[in-house]
Amino acid sequence: MDSTFVVGIDVGGQTSKIGVVDARGTVLAQTVIRTDTYDEVAPFIAELSEAVKKVIKEAGVEGSVRGIGVGAPNGNYYTGTIENAPNLRWGRCKVEFAKLLSEAMEGLPVALTNDANAAAVGEMTYGAARGMKNFIMITLGTGVGSGIVINGEVVYGHDGFAGELGHTAAVRNNGRYCNCGKTGCLEAYCSAMGVARTAREWLELSDEPSVLRNLDTIASKDVFDAAKDGDKLALKIFEYTGKILGRSFADFIAFSAPEAIVLFGGLARAKEFLLAPMEQAMNENVLSLWKDKVKIVFSQLKESDAAILGASALAWEL
Amino acid sequence: MDSTFVVGIDVGGQTSKIGVVDARGTVLAQTVIRTDTYDEVAPFIAELSEAVKKVIKEAGVEGSVRGIGVGAPNGNYYTGTIENAPNLRWGRCKVEFAKLLSEAMEGLPVALTNDANAAAVGEMTYGAARGMKNFIMITLGTGVGSGIVINGEVVYGHDGFAGELGHTAAVRNNGRYCNCGKTGCLEAYCSAMGVARTAREWLELSDEPSVLRNLDTIASKDVFDAAKDGDKLALKIFEYTGKILGRSFADFIAFSAPEAIVLFGGLARAKEFLLAPMEQAMNENVLSLWKDKVKIVFSQLKESDAAILGASALAWEL
Repeated sequence: MDSTFVVGIDVGGQTSKIGVVDARGTVLAQTVIRTDTYDEVAPFIAELSEAVKKVIKEAGVEGSVRGIGVGAPNGNYYTGTIENAPNLRWGRCKVEFAKLLSEAMEGLPVALTNDANAAAVGEMTYGAARGMKNFIMITLGTGVGSGIVINGEVVYGHDGFAGELGHTAAVRNNGRYCNCGKTGCLEAYCSAMGVARTAREWLELSDEPSVLRNLDTIASKDVFDAAKDGDKLALKIFEYTGKILGRSFADFIAFSAPEAIVLFGGLARAKEFLLAPMEQAMNENVLSLWKDKVKIVFSQLKESDAAILGASALAWEL
Repeated sequence: MDSTFVVGIDVGGQTSKIGVVDARGTVLAQTVIRTDTYDEVAPFIAELSEAVKKVIKEAGVEGSVRGIGVGAPNGNYYTGTIENAPNLRWGRCKVEFAKLLSEAMEGLPVALTNDANAAAVGEMTYGAARGMKNFIMITLGTGVGSGIVINGEVVYGHDGFAGELGHTAAVRNNGRYCNCGKTGCLEAYCSAMGVARTAREWLELSDEPSVLRNLDTIASKDVFDAAKDGDKLALKIFEYTGKILGRSFADFIAFSAPEAIVLFGGLARAKEFLLAPMEQAMNENVLSLWKDKVKIVFSQLKESDAAILGASALAWEL
């Protein structure tokens, strides 16, 4: 077997991470460039392709790179485009990202999808979902993303945008406003932003003592730290968050009967507080045939490498 | 091309329908036997296989039958078994249905799945979903069933039981009890039973005049007839039912981004009353990228043939 390599690129709102990866999931070399200093896509692609070439050279694998995988907000696998990405100044309309990058890389093939789908492929290729053919990846970050794998393949749907489980209804009536314009979405409750919002709401609605009262602004990290110190309100916030997640998972299971739900992202670090209420709510709300059958597992990828690994895994399929 | 034929069997709680079908979806011959007169599966299989042989002879296609497709409650595609089917006296435990039938038919291959999945395959092969690779079939009958097609294939999931959308949460708090033991399921509101139940609840909660008040017992058919006569309460019941369906469809779309939702079953006959509220609720609750993009279409199969056609379509894949 000749040894080939792939490049993974994680395009984020502020920075983009680039890495060269081997077949076992080792990141041989990596670098970071800024995303948010560009208003137009052309100069961004120019800098990005230079950075990719540099990192390939650094890894010493020139001529052995099979392709490039890109995870990007609102990335469309079918068309290789990024569309209506509010966090990318150059990506608010439709950008032919894969085509432009491939051209700048002398025709090297480029596959692109959204970040949660890339994470799912990464987990299946290198992580907690190795050997699984049917699982649902849920990314708990600033928002709630998802990547659905059925029969070993990511579900892209008719238009390439399938798997937006963060925008299914967690609360039907009087739900919180979500950034997407709807109300009651899972993301409005169970993202990092959602957790901070629960904290702010509950502090206002009760007089319960909590170290969170001393803070000017509250981020999900503060709630996590308070929970670790045994703060009762913070613990209740995670219990509530876990319960809402578990209830929604029950509905996702009815759809695709996965072997496992795989969790990834900053908020997944609160495993010790989320897991028990999540499992309980999931098993209480699922059809009896799935009770205690579906595993909830946490990502096994090193957090600093995960985004690059996920994106790079796409390129193996090229 | 040599001409081959398939057999479709729809196993229902009371009767089982058997038909011989050609590649264009014409039912060449059919018959019906009783299901509910058997406590054990062996004598049922014996009568069923006799009936199949008779109907093959009647169609004049002996020796040209490629296989048998079976749609049955709680049918598992992977294992060919029927499990925990409350409506089948011989099917309450685990029954090796496909194997037994194949043996009784001298080794003719048998594929088995649940009735809603069979309906999805039927619709894709002969009906409203011809040419579609991504759609969701919803059967509105006594219960609410579903068959999900992604990339041209029915989703069976890790265990063979995927696609139980009738048991996702339509109402999270204070929801109606469902036959499955949970509360708030879509099926408890939007099945034929659910519609009758809405009627009974609303008659008790209001003094609104309605022809439905004159009836001793109310079935969904009565509500349909009353709506056709312009009865205002009956019309409101269908509006409510359509709204709940449309809201749930919005969540299903976020999962698999289908080209269409395809409706089938007795309650789907109330298209004239259901379609508008369903479309409105779906488009109000879906992410903007899917607004006014996903079609709601109704089955195009002749109702008397549909169950046989759906089951038979499975056999083409054998």
